[in-house]
Amino acid sequence: MCKCNNSYRDDKLHHECGVLGIYGVEDAAGLAYYGLHALQHRGQQGCGIVTVDADGDFHRVKGEGLVTEVFNEAKMAKLPGKMAIGHVRYSNAGCKGTENLQPFLFHHNSGDFALANNGQIVNYHQLRDELEDRGSLFQSSSDAEVLAHLIKKQKFEKDTPRIYALKAALNQIDGAFACVVMTGRRIYACRDKNGFHPLAIGKLGEGYVVASETCAFDVLGAEYIRDVEPGEIVTLDHHGIRSQFYAETERHAMCAMEYVYFARPDSDIEGCNVHNYRKESGRILAKEAPADADIVIGVPDSSLSAAQGYAEASGLPYEMGLIKSKYVGRTFILPTQSLREKGVKMKLSPVKTIVKGKRVVLVDDSIVRGTTSLKIVKMLREAGAAEVHVRIASAPLKYTCYYGVDVHTPQELISNSNSVEQVCKLIDADSLAFLSHEGMYKAGKRQDLCIACFNHQYPTNLYEEEK
Amino acid sequence: MCKCNNSYRDDKLHHECGVLGIYGVEDAAGLAYYGLHALQHRGQQGCGIVTVDADGDFHRVKGEGLVTEVFNEAKMAKLPGKMAIGHVRYSNAGCKGTENLQPFLFHHNSGDFALANNGQIVNYHQLRDELEDRGSLFQSSSDAEVLAHLIKKQKFEKDTPRIYALKAALNQIDGAFACVVMTGRRIYACRDKNGFHPLAIGKLGEGYVVASETCAFDVLGAEYIRDVEPGEIVTLDHHGIRSQFYAETERHAMCAMEYVYFARPDSDIEGCNVHNYRKESGRILAKEAPADADIVIGVPDSSLSAAQGYAEASGLPYEMGLIKSKYVGRTFILPTQSLREKGVKMKLSPVKTIVKGKRVVLVDDSIVRGTTSLKIVKMLREAGAAEVHVRIASAPLKYTCYYGVDVHTPQELISNSNSVEQVCKLIDADSLAFLSHEGMYKAGKRQDLCIACFNHQYPTNLYEEEK
Amino acid sequence: MCKCNNSYRDDKLHHECGVLGIYGVEDAAGLAYYGLHALQHRGQQGCGIVTVDADGDFHRVKGEGLVTEVFNEAKMAKLPGKMAIGHVRYSNAGCKGTENLQPFLFHHNSGDFALANNGQIVNYHQLRDELEDRGSLFQSSSDAEVLAHLIKKQKFEKDTPRIYALKAALNQIDGAFACVVMTGRRIYACRDKNGFHPLAIGKLGEGYVVASETCAFDVLGAEYIRDVEPGEIVTLDHHGIRSQFYAETERHAMCAMEYVYFARPDSDIEGCNVHNYRKESGRILAKEAPADADIVIGVPDSSLSAAQGYAEASGLPYEMGLIKSKYVGRTFILPTQSLREKGVKMKLSPVKTIVKGKRVVLVDDSIVRGTTSLKIVKMLREAGAAEVHVRIASAPLKYTCYYGVDVHTPQELISNSNSVEQVCKLIDADSLAFLSHEGMYKAGKRQDLCIACFNHQYPTNLYEEEK
Amino acid sequence: MCKCNNSYRDDKLHHECGVLGIYGVEDAAGLAYYGLHALQHRGQQGCGIVTVDADGDFHRVKGEGLVTEVFNEAKMAKLPGKMAIGHVRYSNAGCKGTENLQPFLFHHNSGDFALANNGQIVNYHQLRDELEDRGSLFQSSSDAEVLAHLIKKQKFEKDTPRIYALKAALNQIDGAFACVVMTGRRIYACRDKNGFHPLAIGKLGEGYVVASETCAFDVLGAEYIRDVEPGEIVTLDHHGIRSQFYAETERHAMCAMEYVYFARPDSDIEGCNVHNYRKESGRILAKEAPADADIVIGVPDSSLSAAQGYAEASGLPYEMGLIKSKYVGRTFILPTQSLREKGVKMKLSPVKTIVKGKRVVLVDDSIVRGTTSLKIVKMLREAGAAEVHVRIASAPLKYTCYYGVDVHTPQELISNSNSVEQVCKLIDADSLAFLSHEGMYKAGKRQDLCIACFNHQYPTNLYEEEK
Repeated sequence: MCKCNNSYRDDKLHHECGVLGIYGVEDAAGLAYYGLHALQHRGQQGCGIVTVDADGDFHRVKGEGLVTEVFNEAKMAKLPGKMAIGHVRYSNAGCKGTENLQPFLFHHNSGDFALANNGQIVNYHQLRDELEDRGSLFQSSSDAEVLAHLIKKQKFEKDTPRIYALKAALNQIDGAFACVVMTGRRIYACRDKNGFHPLAIGKLGEGYVVASETCAFDVLGAEYIRDVEPGEIVTLDHHGIRSQFYAETERHAMCAMEYVYFARPDSDIEGCNVHNYRKESGRILAKEAPADADIVIGVPDSSLSAAQGYAEASGLPYEMGLIKSKYVGRTFILPTQSLREKGVKMKLSPVKTIVKGKRVVLVDDSIVRGTTSLKIVKMLREAGAAEVHVRIASAPLKYTCYYGVDVHTPQELISNSNSVEQVCKLIDADSLAFLSHEGMYKAGKRQDLCIACFNHQYPTNLYEEEK
Repeated sequence: MCKCNNSYRDDKLHHECGVLGIYGVEDAAGLAYYGLHALQHRGQQGCGIVTVDADGDFHRVKGEGLVTEVFNEAKMAKLPGKMAIGHVRYSNAGCKGTENLQPFLFHHNSGDFALANNGQIVNYHQLRDELEDRGSLFQSSSDAEVLAHLIKKQKFEKDTPRIYALKAALNQIDGAFACVVMTGRRIYACRDKNGFHPLAIGKLGEGYVVASETCAFDVLGAEYIRDVEPGEIVTLDHHGIRSQFYAETERHAMCAMEYVYFARPDSDIEGCNVHNYRKESGRILAKEAPADADIVIGVPDSSLSAAQGYAEASGLPYEMGLIKSKYVGRTFILPTQSLREKGVKMKLSPVKTIVKGKRVVLVDDSIVRGTTSLKIVKMLREAGAAEVHVRIASAPLKYTCYYGVDVHTPQELISNSNSVEQVCKLIDADSLAFLSHEGMYKAGKRQDLCIACFNHQYPTNLYEEEK
Repeated sequence: MCKCNNSYRDDKLHHECGVLGIYGVEDAAGLAYYGLHALQHRGQQGCGIVTVDADGDFHRVKGEGLVTEVFNEAKMAKLPGKMAIGHVRYSNAGCKGTENLQPFLFHHNSGDFALANNGQIVNYHQLRDELEDRGSLFQSSSDAEVLAHLIKKQKFEKDTPRIYALKAALNQIDGAFACVVMTGRRIYACRDKNGFHPLAIGKLGEGYVVASETCAFDVLGAEYIRDVEPGEIVTLDHHGIRSQFYAETERHAMCAMEYVYFARPDSDIEGCNVHNYRKESGRILAKEAPADADIVIGVPDSSLSAAQGYAEASGLPYEMGLIKSKYVGRTFILPTQSLREKGVKMKLSPVKTIVKGKRVVLVDDSIVRGTTSLKIVKMLREAGAAEVHVRIASAPLKYTCYYGVDVHTPQELISNSNSVEQVCKLIDADSLAFLSHEGMYKAGKRQDLCIACFNHQYPTNLYEEEK
Repeated sequence: MCKCNNSYRDDKLHHECGVLGIYGVEDAAGLAYYGLHALQHRGQQGCGIVTVDADGDFHRVKGEGLVTEVFNEAKMAKLPGKMAIGHVRYSNAGCKGTENLQPFLFHHNSGDFALANNGQIVNYHQLRDELEDRGSLFQSSSDAEVLAHLIKKQKFEKDTPRIYALKAALNQIDGAFACVVMTGRRIYACRDKNGFHPLAIGKLGEGYVVASETCAFDVLGAEYIRDVEPGEIVTLDHHGIRSQFYAETERHAMCAMEYVYFARPDSDIEGCNVHNYRKESGRILAKEAPADADIVIGVPDSSLSAAQGYAEASGLPYEMGLIKSKYVGRTFILPTQSLREKGVKMKLSPVKTIVKGKRVVLVDDSIVRGTTSLKIVKMLREAGAAEVHVRIASAPLKYTCYYGVDVHTPQELISNSNSVEQVCKLIDADSLAFLSHEGMYKAGKRQDLCIACFNHQYPTNLYEEEK
């Protein structure tokens, strides 16, 4: 996660990013391209691919923009080799700039290496200060660069094999990371002790693929093998897959928001399909908070599964009451204030024929600041909805995240200082209900989720400046 | 419809295009931009906007590509005025070129005018030959240019008011059109005698909007008024809306494929919502052709409503068994043959966790050549589906279309020469059923649909060279 | 020349455009690309190429921008065939738009044809009005479209062979044109009766090339044959070169500004090399108007040859006292007012070391409004020049042009209402002298130049609205 | 200079790059933009600008391409502040990639700093190895990154003020550099002990500009003050200009090729104008090696001044016998082999009318591999030249350069193993002469030039791996 201060704030949480590795398959870069495209929802600000060719030479292309904008055939031709790692990145406005784009590529006379990371190091500032005091120079504000310097310092001072350097470096880090490190011969896939973010391994032809989400496996025709474990380093090389643990799992704490909002519905995270999680959360929500209504609609796209589950469990018909525009890239011209006042809709439009005169259950995945919820409720009323009952397929979002999710300051979160009844009024709904904490666990049939942004129980130490 | 011969053939039907008009609202071009964006699904090859400013001067921007690619803020600044017409265009490969992009803009000392059309003139060749024999020069291969010359010839030879010229011109045309004609002072919205393609009028602030689909109204915050009638010319000017009929409705024959596949689900066509039509067609299909299965899945995006209807009526759960990649524009790098062989998926991926071990009902809107259906069935089997029962929410597609839909030659249509049983084998399904002709009518609660491509009953005369 | 009113005014005259034809050589479009690139100085607003392939089918690519911006390898691949015509276009701001870009391509059942023109038809409005009264529809404001309609009307009404239609059409036109017309089998190169603008024929391998300037021949490795004569139609086809005259030369009147400013120095126009003309004009100027000075400098790029001639004849050293920035395309960011006030130079910078303390002879090709001359004199003084003696290698520019040069209204021309002495003061020079009318003839060793913008003797009738 | 091995070879030497700094003027980035544009000839592969705003925050934009391609108004808006440094870069093919683009920007808890360099460090590999052994991580293959690490190591280990760190770092370096280092408050301009490459300081409004060439001063309206001396560090801050020497000038050795070929003719290098140098070298050459001929022509653009000098001294007329195409950016389509065989010229065309039947003196600045010279001589003969006498305004190029010029391996230099007579035959000239070593000194009225590539007298130690 980028450490600069001025971050962009809209009314959605943002995933940090997505990582990918390909080992041992011809045209690894081509495969990485399609894999990153499948991970595009995890970060739209920039992306990159680094490959290693048969001679052990590294090649890199990275840039700001979508995968389809950064890469073209000419650039792909510059990425030979059977090993590749890639990265898609979300960033808040202040951290833009090519220097923060990953994968990072480091040169050193003991061997070059590349690195891509998804996560946020909690003791980043302490570690960086120490490194700088010892003469390290940084060219970015990214966690990944700290990790690289840690690895290299280990190597230098102790002259140990690289895997030991890696283990020693990872042990110094508190917080969240799911990273791939590529040397001239192998790829290491590593996950933090708590397993905050997903990282899975698949079989791809003669070789392997490792990715933040399994949706990348399906598009590549790869076979899911297993997830990287918390505290594990998985080595991909000509020996196949080998495993080491640099630390014991402290407390497995998979980010619940990955299921609720971030991940693609066709991904499986640690054995549980995301669409199934969402549908189940909708079913539980229908039981916890039924509504006397005519139809169920979801906020596209992330809430459609939960809405279908709610519809199924409630026996109400699921209808297409809201339509989302497909904005194509950054070239879309935003409507002027004057056009917005005339009624031009930005992203969502109601389908009048469907909602007119109906008592509507509106299912959404979460409420952040509440401004979007208010707009949607208003929009539905203007389109003729008789009643609007809002049902949220997660608990009230109250606290910030230190593990890689760009949550707002607690003050901006509407549920931080308002009761459910107050929020209901603020978003102008006829009724409002959230899924219980227990419901969130039940939907995934697992208790080992991190729901710290809902219940303030952070799985790691927090450092002074983060608090 | 473009008249050149070498047309592109993939395994989908293609709509011809979409038209739009804005009358009497500030920044008409800005509104046209968002309106055309909502109509983008009707044509992705090119688009354009023509405006008329306060002095009666015409301004035009058009180009190849998506609405978001052709227009930018600098170009929008060149389109002043409170009147605009716009067009999005599909074209088969051979007819590309700026000269075929609409709206057309014609200069004449009796007054300039612009024109945009959706449809196909059946007696195009006869009319063009006549016009050329009388000295007309054509710069495109588009129906719209013929229409313009017809209007101008009328004007010239008979020196009549423009509305009479327009009526006389329209009366010479057989076939399908839904067009907007803009002069320095007004916009005419016209529809052919059979009403093949939709065209609706809405109230937009102080002015009006006319569009191929009502989904453009919702994004603009406009209020639907009514559809333009078959054989009607609606005039939009400072008098408001005025209506004239240049001909009597011969036989109302709305293109059924607009409901089945072309239109956006949030559009209403002549009083019937498209999502509702599709959902109802799915319900009817479930009754006509039930299946002994575990889950229902739809082919995204156009078949999801029908699949939901099928699920509701059958009592089976509706699941997200197929995922569609969102390709962004034309910059996507197509996988090489070698990558496709490795398993890289182009557009659709199966969600293994969902389909594995399940007996699946696969609902699709139509089968054209059958190649895509075969691929999807195969893909589902590879992902572990126990059985695949294909259900099509329209009848077997057997004949070509002369009214603006780029249907393939009959020989290419798999149902033209194969029985349902044969098709079932060809696409490797466990069972296959189509919706009946009667079911297609019932889903829309209307008999006045054109289903000529299904039943060979063409509502108009056909001319020699078309046959 | 474009007929719309709002034209862009800077302190330079502008050529109208350049035309090119290639007959009978493989990859005619490729050759046209390099040829048009050599003609790029004649028009930077837009360009296009039309080819005819072996089957007689026409192909076109055109667009706004430089040759290197409009064409790329993908677009060149769409232009097969051994025949091509091309065009580069200058336009004043009001006439932009794809519809005005040439070559034009016209479809007709008697045979398609394409057309590109350099010039200005004096009786354009009369001809267009007549044609529109007879039902012609225009899609541009270009002379070339009138010419096309005239050809087609002839063909239609009299059913004559095409060459007769062409002759009849050309005979109706007064004014300036140098055009290429391409049918499915041949290219016609035509020049007006007065021969206002250049058009030359060369041998290119097995085939031929025709171009506005011979500099296109050198880049293509073609051999100059001869110029097209005033009033001549040269036919290029499988018979080779054939000549016909549609009219007698009325009075040969080659535009003097082609020599003075428009053409590239390496071009030969009707037997006289442009660099040689300019150098000779400089020598004559040195004799007509000597100066007591230390060095001679020219305004880059068009005045360098004249300055060298002046230096040679005067015995003064020729030095590089002014440097011109090479702006690359339209992406150059113009300095803000604030930056200009800080001293940022736009196009020309003085070389201080060279001009400091020197008495400078500044040679320029012409003075239009005088604003640039004033700026340059001031710039040289600020750079330390002791004296600045301005010498202009053409006569005072006083009148407008009706033959294709975008001259300003007479009121804007500084010499229209000011004596040489007054202009000298207005541009703050120590002395000022222009070349005499006789000197302009002598430099080219020919009397048959059109110098109407200097001496008001227009070689043709002028029509009411033009006056 | 980039250290990777696979370098691009054409028949020209290449300058390394250009640097620029602006201190204390509003919109420093805007000024840097125009300044870099004036330095564009020193490197076309990529460029960048870093600014420091009023709060001491650093901002950077860099990218591959020309100044006009990398920057646009949106990007300029991201570069606030009154301090800026910039860089334009040439690179051989193997070293492309964003990571090698300068200025570099380094973050450190003792203060961020940016750095841009022109030159080549002779003991680069030794220094880098040492640094890596002590744990430094490199992200590029650029000299500038080594310099940054050296500065930071000093700072870290000795905890000295920054200027002492800078001095200590520079003292470790052997070879050529002319660099600007920008901290949050000041800009340091530094030059190596031998003064291989130029770096000059000017007054710009309230502030200062430092640039590789003074041509950037003229475009900005800045006043030349003086050159940075060999071994000097000039500090620009709110105290104005302050000077310190980190070392004594060992032996001033300005690169002669800067005068001969690299620099723009309007630049002054250490008091001597480049155009004047070249003209004088032409005059001396005319005396050293007269020719019995009719006209003198130069190879555009870099040899025109020398050709004018040769013409002046010999009394022969200087003519425009060769024309250079202005290729616009990287979008120019290169002619295919087939088109080149047809005669399509790439860069230079002869002007037949001028050279036909003439005995030509062809003046060029240098001969590298000789392939271009052979082409030009052949081209002139084909255009009808009776004789071609080649005169080179520098000495025979025989040895490689270790100071920042991408000279070829000695084996590729035609004069390395061939006598003048042999070269004359190889390039098919009627006669050939080079300027003497003494002539090169005389043209600049200075003996302190580095002409090591001509006479093998390298001014510094050379390290093993470089030899």
